[in-house]
Amino acid sequence: MKKRYSYNILFQFVTEVFFKIGCKKADAELIAEVLLAAELRGIPSHGLARVKTYLGLWEVGRITLNNEVKVVHETLSTATIDNGNGFGMLGAKKAMKLAIEKAKIAGTGWVSVLNSNHFGIAGYYAMLALKDDMIGITMTNASPLVAPTWSTSRFLGTNPIAVAIPAENYPPFVADFATTPIAQGKLSLIERKGKKCNKGFVQDKEGIPSTNPAILKQGGAIVPLGSDYEHGSHKGYCLGAIVDIFSSVFSGANFGPFTPPQVAFLPLSEKSTGLGIGHFFGAIRIDAFRPASEFKKSMDQWIETFKNAAPTAGHEKVLIPGEPEKQNTEYNLKNGIDVLPDVEVELIKIAEKYNVTIYK
Amino acid sequence: MKKRYSYNILFQFVTEVFFKIGCKKADAELIAEVLLAAELRGIPSHGLARVKTYLGLWEVGRITLNNEVKVVHETLSTATIDNGNGFGMLGAKKAMKLAIEKAKIAGTGWVSVLNSNHFGIAGYYAMLALKDDMIGITMTNASPLVAPTWSTSRFLGTNPIAVAIPAENYPPFVADFATTPIAQGKLSLIERKGKKCNKGFVQDKEGIPSTNPAILKQGGAIVPLGSDYEHGSHKGYCLGAIVDIFSSVFSGANFGPFTPPQVAFLPLSEKSTGLGIGHFFGAIRIDAFRPASEFKKSMDQWIETFKNAAPTAGHEKVLIPGEPEKQNTEYNLKNGIDVLPDVEVELIKIAEKYNVTIYK
Repeated sequence: MKKRYSYNILFQFVTEVFFKIGCKKADAELIAEVLLAAELRGIPSHGLARVKTYLGLWEVGRITLNNEVKVVHETLSTATIDNGNGFGMLGAKKAMKLAIEKAKIAGTGWVSVLNSNHFGIAGYYAMLALKDDMIGITMTNASPLVAPTWSTSRFLGTNPIAVAIPAENYPPFVADFATTPIAQGKLSLIERKGKKCNKGFVQDKEGIPSTNPAILKQGGAIVPLGSDYEHGSHKGYCLGAIVDIFSSVFSGANFGPFTPPQVAFLPLSEKSTGLGIGHFFGAIRIDAFRPASEFKKSMDQWIETFKNAAPTAGHEKVLIPGEPEKQNTEYNLKNGIDVLPDVEVELIKIAEKYNVTIYK
Repeated sequence: MKKRYSYNILFQFVTEVFFKIGCKKADAELIAEVLLAAELRGIPSHGLARVKTYLGLWEVGRITLNNEVKVVHETLSTATIDNGNGFGMLGAKKAMKLAIEKAKIAGTGWVSVLNSNHFGIAGYYAMLALKDDMIGITMTNASPLVAPTWSTSRFLGTNPIAVAIPAENYPPFVADFATTPIAQGKLSLIERKGKKCNKGFVQDKEGIPSTNPAILKQGGAIVPLGSDYEHGSHKGYCLGAIVDIFSSVFSGANFGPFTPPQVAFLPLSEKSTGLGIGHFFGAIRIDAFRPASEFKKSMDQWIETFKNAAPTAGHEKVLIPGEPEKQNTEYNLKNGIDVLPDVEVELIKIAEKYNVTIYK
């Protein structure tokens, strides 16, 4: 008797759970809003499935509630924020808001965050810049599961990049992607179905290409975007490294292999090179380079040009980044969110444990 | 009787050629310096091979000599520069210098360039920021040869990204890569050897994967980094699109399919969406986010960590971006530059045509 849940019901539920464990109301609402933004956009790996993992991190004392979020370094166009080991959303939203304020004065604003945790989908923060006629940029480092080219060492995360760019009449261009061929969530899904994965996603502990989606549990690693050296995986390694450095060396968070895993069942690294995980945010006023009206007109023209690219056989059209996610959002707001069966079971247990009602 | 040419001999030769056609001495020297930086770093596709193509563009009137380079838009941390249709190097170097000046005051500086042409290797400009204890970033759009995922339309260039990051005791981290699995120059090399290329580099005019390195002449296209949708080519498409938008929609240059080809034998697009090709430059003070000494110490630690990653069988070690190019530079400065045989023939013809001596 599977039924879709309305956005409002889920928002209320998630808010109440985080309020119950001791978060301030506004903080609990922000966590709910970001997790549900992922569900709306059709990225359930970063949505309600994280309620259980976030609670798990809090239960073992890895996350600080009611953390102080403070600016620790600043220039006209930049700042560094210490998130006080709180939920990633709290420092991340303040960082993007500060980047936007800096951009209003300096043309651009750039904020790095240390001492943080998983912040949900990168695209949520990048998109916050759009309403002020700005481009938004987000990066974060993440649990180390990716091996550099020619290595067996799990030294990088799937380290995503998100870029949101406003247009005039078309919806914004919103790219939000991991710097690996596949996200960890999708690998788990293949594993649960008992299937093999394509070559070019993972390698075993010796660095030999594998099709076993469970190979990460046996010392294997995800490979960088490009899959192998021949196809440019060293470029994916560069990208993942740049995201790691911008997120953690700028801010003073842990980098690479020392990035704290964002699940309670994985141990922390014995060595530390900073505090928590790190993020990086940017806001660029569209009128920082040319008049806003010209920029928007040109961006509309760009989108129209690429929408009209000739599709290959079997494909209706070429996609503009962010287009499918926008359609998913509209559909899910209207028809409700289709919660994954495993996640629904988890949420019902959480509802009982924390004595919060989940309405259907 | 193949012999290596010394850097100084080649620098003098290239400078004289461009001086002879009417460039100012300083401009001719800069063109020579950038082209030879590519030779030194071991990237001959962007080195002396371009002397002939640049002259070809000038001969058909596609490049303006002694162009005016002017700032046309500005904020505290940003600017847009019109390169007056001159050689790309001229506007590019001024743009990076302006980005550095902006960063001295605002923490970061970002400059877009319109009305420009091919500027050589992206890494050259990114590295200019290093001596001021800044991170340098370069992007450019390029001749349209790459099809978006699920398309047969050649709408993007190989659109490179370069990022140079200073350290304390280690050489800087310098990433400089196309957002495609293979550069066009390497494809030509495979073709000249009469070999087939790997799957995952190019597709035919119907969008079907091909192993023919000459397929671009038959309406085929290079694919984005990731090679196919299954392996994340939509992420490579996003990257190429972001570089295109930052380089051309910011500045008002031509974007995507309208980007003027940087070889004289390919016709210009009938439609124009701006002026020339576009570039984008960034400079970030390393003390914009934390004290410089802390940043450099942490960057040294990052490099040391990744240098010590466990290599896979058959590989001695994991590479830090920029390491092989630095070794090439030291070797080539000491032992001379090994000019490609085809290119040597071209240079000798150019020496005759423009009455310039090329010493051996």
